Amino acid sequence: MALLSVLTPVLAVVLCLVIGFMLVRSRDAEATSTTSCGKTEGPPKADFRPWVDQELQDDTEDKGKEDEDADWVDNNEEEDLQHVPFSAPGYPEETMLKRSKDFYTLMNQRRTVRFISPDPVPREVINNVILTAGTAPSGAHTEPWTFVVVSEPETKHQIRQIVEEEEEVNYRQRMGDKWVTDLAKLRTNWIKEYLDVAPYLILVFKQIHGIRPDGKKITHYYNEISVSISCGLLLAALQNVGLVTVTSTPLNCGPKLRLLLKRPANEKLLMLLPVGYPAGNATVPDLKRKPLDDIMMHI
Amino acid sequence: MALLSVLTPVLAVVLCLVIGFMLVRSRDAEATSTTSCGKTEGPPKADFRPWVDQELQDDTEDKGKEDEDADWVDNNEEEDLQHVPFSAPGYPEETMLKRSKDFYTLMNQRRTVRFISPDPVPREVINNVILTAGTAPSGAHTEPWTFVVVSEPETKHQIRQIVEEEEEVNYRQRMGDKWVTDLAKLRTNWIKEYLDVAPYLILVFKQIHGIRPDGKKITHYYNEISVSISCGLLLAALQNVGLVTVTSTPLNCGPKLRLLLKRPANEKLLMLLPVGYPAGNATVPDLKRKPLDDIMMHI
Repeated sequence: MALLSVLTPVLAVVLCLVIGFMLVRSRDAEATSTTSCGKTEGPPKADFRPWVDQELQDDTEDKGKEDEDADWVDNNEEEDLQHVPFSAPGYPEETMLKRSKDFYTLMNQRRTVRFISPDPVPREVINNVILTAGTAPSGAHTEPWTFVVVSEPETKHQIRQIVEEEEEVNYRQRMGDKWVTDLAKLRTNWIKEYLDVAPYLILVFKQIHGIRPDGKKITHYYNEISVSISCGLLLAALQNVGLVTVTSTPLNCGPKLRLLLKRPANEKLLMLLPVGYPAGNATVPDLKRKPLDDIMMHI
Repeated sequence: MALLSVLTPVLAVVLCLVIGFMLVRSRDAEATSTTSCGKTEGPPKADFRPWVDQELQDDTEDKGKEDEDADWVDNNEEEDLQHVPFSAPGYPEETMLKRSKDFYTLMNQRRTVRFISPDPVPREVINNVILTAGTAPSGAHTEPWTFVVVSEPETKHQIRQIVEEEEEVNYRQRMGDKWVTDLAKLRTNWIKEYLDVAPYLILVFKQIHGIRPDGKKITHYYNEISVSISCGLLLAALQNVGLVTVTSTPLNCGPKLRLLLKRPANEKLLMLLPVGYPAGNATVPDLKRKPLDDIMMHI
């Protein structure tokens, strides 16, 4: 009897420890983990982050579910893809120097401009700008981007309403005082008139995975980095023709905008770019860029 | 006595439940969370993801610790930053059309090239290419990039050793069969000869936060997206002068490479770009890019 009265609490404690341990382990399994350089790995896991060249891997939102979902295939219809000679026009060194300097001068004039003219822009120019963005490199050549170009006024207005609604909540509630202060010098607020005024809104979606006609999913390695690189080319192409934009990332509004524009569930909004000529009275904050020695180290 | 013998196990169970509950709560607090569009928010939290224009916010690696660390300040020394008129040379529509077409043609010739010539490249050209990358937009104008340019042969060789060591583990162990198959058509493996051969290696680091001279931390909103956009401009600048590269992301080797190059803890490796002229016998996989209708939707 004495033994029993001692054993009961001991058993109860042991039982609770076991339950608690199981709970903790199941929480840990949900967390993302990365491997550190040099550790020996067992069989491949869905949560590793290996090194690859060109073929980039990132924490896509559905990564944890990759191996659970039914059908994943390679983005590879021809394993014996032909390799062909590469050649490109080279330039003499003096020409390279001049070209590099001219291109830098052109790009250095690029600024984010919030005051956009309503004047129409030739459609074919926008097409070429999008095509240029599409020349970016991407993980395993998956080209995981969709550019939704909106010029229809009612749709632009609906986009503006969604964005301003979220932005007002941000400025009034969500953003820390520090962030609002950081933006103060840029004189931003939740009113986004350019969303109605600009002749084009380009909404850049990343495809977190591809879908084949038979429904099987295609892995899109490093889709966010790839689409961001593509946006860099897009900005260069806009600057090259004298158009301006605002590089904005309305992530909170992503789902609403995706539904408004009838994009599928594998696409997530990454950036929203209003595009047009600068307004006549456009102003920009008098910011300076860092000098070369601040951004480059040479070894 | 009877009461005591009943109470003891009950107390033991209650105690264990409390301990288990506390363990579970402390694990949850470490996990990242995001808010969904439209929900009413209370006071600002470190884990929200609001909508901002230009001023991008991402899941920087130390985000969870942002509010715990001692001193965070605004990237804002002058709240009353002057705003100045913006003007840019405009082009007639025919010129815009030609410029957009020529730039697209130039960028469309860009390919990832793994066979790089050892021929030296003028240093000033590389400087202008880096300066061009530095003209990218960035969250709250934080310019969160560091470009480490390596031309010294011994350091390049050490970089190659680190990368190949990790890459061999990847190919042999970590990467799923699917990924290896996806890469098969690109004929990649863990041998990265170009890391020794290319005259320059450009290692692109993202600064996950800034540090003021007095040691206070500066928030770097959307640093990964900003630096990726910057890389897009860098690639355009390289293509513009006839240089080639491989867009690679050796994340597993990030810490080792950071230490080798003596970069501080707030910098994380994002990309490694070997740069040079294409080798005479360079080949590329015969890939095609998607047509405009596949990447653009017009509303």
